[in-house]
Amino acid sequence: MGTRAEAAGPRFDRDFRERLLALFHWRRDVRRFRADPVDDETLDRLIAAACLAPSVGLSQPWRFVIVDDPIRRAAIVETFTRCNQDALAAYAPDAAVHYARLKLEGLRTAPRHLAIFADETTGQGRGLGRATMPEMARYSVVAAIDHLWLAARAEGIGMGWVSILEPAAVHAALDTPATWTLIGYFCLGFPEVDDDTPELEREDWEHRRPGDAFVIRR
Amino acid sequence: MGTRAEAAGPRFDRDFRERLLALFHWRRDVRRFRADPVDDETLDRLIAAACLAPSVGLSQPWRFVIVDDPIRRAAIVETFTRCNQDALAAYAPDAAVHYARLKLEGLRTAPRHLAIFADETTGQGRGLGRATMPEMARYSVVAAIDHLWLAARAEGIGMGWVSILEPAAVHAALDTPATWTLIGYFCLGFPEVDDDTPELEREDWEHRRPGDAFVIRR
Repeated sequence: MGTRAEAAGPRFDRDFRERLLALFHWRRDVRRFRADPVDDETLDRLIAAACLAPSVGLSQPWRFVIVDDPIRRAAIVETFTRCNQDALAAYAPDAAVHYARLKLEGLRTAPRHLAIFADETTGQGRGLGRATMPEMARYSVVAAIDHLWLAARAEGIGMGWVSILEPAAVHAALDTPATWTLIGYFCLGFPEVDDDTPELEREDWEHRRPGDAFVIRR
Repeated sequence: MGTRAEAAGPRFDRDFRERLLALFHWRRDVRRFRADPVDDETLDRLIAAACLAPSVGLSQPWRFVIVDDPIRRAAIVETFTRCNQDALAAYAPDAAVHYARLKLEGLRTAPRHLAIFADETTGQGRGLGRATMPEMARYSVVAAIDHLWLAARAEGIGMGWVSILEPAAVHAALDTPATWTLIGYFCLGFPEVDDDTPELEREDWEHRRPGDAFVIRR
């Protein structure tokens, strides 16, 4: 252990850092998938990469549910459809017309579906770091999701996060433990196209601001 | 725009994917920092990389507070110290002895401090994707944190997440808008040592399980 701790880890050179930044630039929320399959081995590899994310107290509270059953998938489409209609109805007329034109999920075409939960009751980690900020367990799962997203894109696989649904309906559809908290529902597959600009920006729904717009100093 | 959408993005080859995985393996929660400075330009570059993270509805709800003022930093140390004493007191005797030996933050030695918040009231994104899961704004900020962590490690810079503190005390110390939600408080700097094993694992506090321990199928 001593020697390992004293050894220098890998140095990441400029070429790698530039490619990492390109990975960040070309990672998209994908809603248009080709039919090409993503096999189990690939999915396992991406999940293993996700598990290298930071987790509070080493609690690894992430729980991955691979959803293949068409009936369960149909129930997910149903909750999305209902929630999306509700969202549409809540916009003013002009915005609603714009909203209705957006494609916000690829549930029917994505070859793989993945639901990701947090087990906030896990004893792993022995509660370290979670006493005053219990939300840290959920945040650890989001870090794993971000890792998975980047690892997928590095293999040319796109991921889309579907948040327009009722967590309770997802639980019911998947028959998952009541103690788990839904963090996100994801579509995975090879994208129809690559792009370095978010679809919501191309569709003029919203535009990104540069980093310095979000910084204050104290 | 049409041509860009139709163009293929960069392909990431096996060499890059292996180095990305090495980055994941060697990213640590760092609590022991060298005195070498991290300059503003570097911090700005890391924040810009973080802003390439996914955000719900393109809302970019992340807010970065660069904390340099020693009095404000001392107030952060104070809330950590208080919360850490409370945490220690809550463990059974054997675990408390073990807990007391752990080094859980590098607040006094880290050259840079960064507090990261979510502005859940932002109009950016026009509410898209947040109606049924308003927590998506906070989760978007965690994705940015994960991006920042990886970009930092690629430059040899370590980051540590300090969650043993009272969010209200952090708000008070930093005089930040009451509408912002604290997501995390971070130390940044060059690490004393590199390691591919978490300190909590080396200290026998907890051990990591492999990815397949966290997967179920539906």
